[in-house]
Parts: sequence; structure tokens; C-alpha cells
Amino acid sequence: MKIIHYTDAKAHKFDGNIVKDVTGRVVIGKEDKASNFCMRVFTIAPAGFTPKHAHDWEHEIFVHSGEGSVFKNGKWCEVSAGSVIFIPGNEEHQLKNEGDEDFTFVCLIPSGVDEI
Amino acid sequence: MKIIHYTDAKAHKFDGNIVKDVTGRVVIGKEDKASNFCMRVFTIAPAGFTPKHAHDWEHEIFVHSGEGSVFKNGKWCEVSAGSVIFIPGNEEHQLKNEGDEDFTFVCLIPSGVDEI
Repeated sequence: MKIIHYTDAKAHKFDGNIVKDVTGRVVIGKEDKASNFCMRVFTIAPAGFTPKHAHDWEHEIFVHSGEGSVFKNGKWCEVSAGSVIFIPGNEEHQLKNEGDEDFTFVCLIPSGVDEI
Repeated sequence: MKIIHYTDAKAHKFDGNIVKDVTGRVVIGKEDKASNFCMRVFTIAPAGFTPKHAHDWEHEIFVHSGEGSVFKNGKWCEVSAGSVIFIPGNEEHQLKNEGDEDFTFVCLIPSGVDEI
């Protein structure tokens, strides 16, 4: 059994034109011999956003803290602590921070794709 | 894309000799055509606990709020908001609430086993 705080995992920083002020951490993955799915935790700083994209695999997301929104079928939908988002494969999506504090969410993907 | 608050999902109550004051919700699962893994959210009331057991499949857990502990190799380990727990298949485990507030965590399992 592995027990950590998510902030103990290695932080990967993403910042550029298509992604802004995002920190991602793989907290459970292939290094732990988790063979079915992978847990990551992402933190978006105020005014930051993830890329708008689509891919074959799904996301299962739980919002831990902060205020954000999700791009769904051309509209932005508000989410906050306790929100759950299921993004099926091949559906375009993007998340952004809409608040003054960090926006942090757990995002799971199936095994076999890049973990971060 | 599905967006809900976890409290919008149907609540399943568990209370007895081996489990006390636990509420479980399937928030993403086979009804959503999530074919690889299933997200549940559990809330344990103060003094409550889950069963002490082991089973073939793994758990990937993220603690959303509250104070709790996890039974690991004969010892209780404290966890709180932001803790991540990976329980491999066949490892005995139990979670309990150690605080005065609800203890809420996200718990993912692979598809193909009972969702709740």
C-alpha cells in the first residue's frame, strides 16, 4: 500500500501558448504497478488553463478545490469542489481556472497512454 | 460529457457490525459507458468505518476532506485532504473517520467488479 500527499509527487510544469500555469503530478501509475488506470492531480493557477484538445481515451475527473469551468460542446460550464466530470474518448475539452485561488482536480486515465 | 456534483448521485447507506455510517455513491460507471474504471465517492460520518477486508482488485483513493486513517500492515496511518492511497489487489485494508467532521474520499476500481 502506498500513502502519500499529492504534493509529494514530482511536479511537472506546463506553460505556453496552448496551456497556461498548469502543474501536473502522477500520484498513482505504472511505477506503482497500477495496471488498469492512472491517477494524476492537476493544479491550475488563477487565469490558467489546460489545452483545448481531444484524444482517444477518457478522463474521469473529481474537483478537489477552487473554482473553474469546463468547455463542453461549445459552452463553458462552471465547476467547483465536489464536481465530477466524465469526458468520453474523442470529445473536445478544456479546463480553466475562474477564481482567485488555485483550481485543483484529480484526473484519471486508462493505462497504456502517456501518464503526464 | 457528464458534469454533476457528487452529492447528486444516488446515495447507498451502509451501517451494521462490520461497516458503520458509510455513504457510497457511484459517480462515473457503466451507466455512463465508462468501460475501463469506475469512480465512487464515499463519506464516513464521525466514528464510522468501512469493512476490514481484502479482494482481488485494487483501489486508487484521493481524500477530499476530513481526517481519517487507513489500516496498513497492522497499523493505522493518518490521512487527510489531499492524501493519496494506492491499495493493490489482495491487500487487507480498512478506512475510518478520526475527526469531528465527515471524512470524504474518492475511490476508483477497475470495471467488471461490483460498482458499489
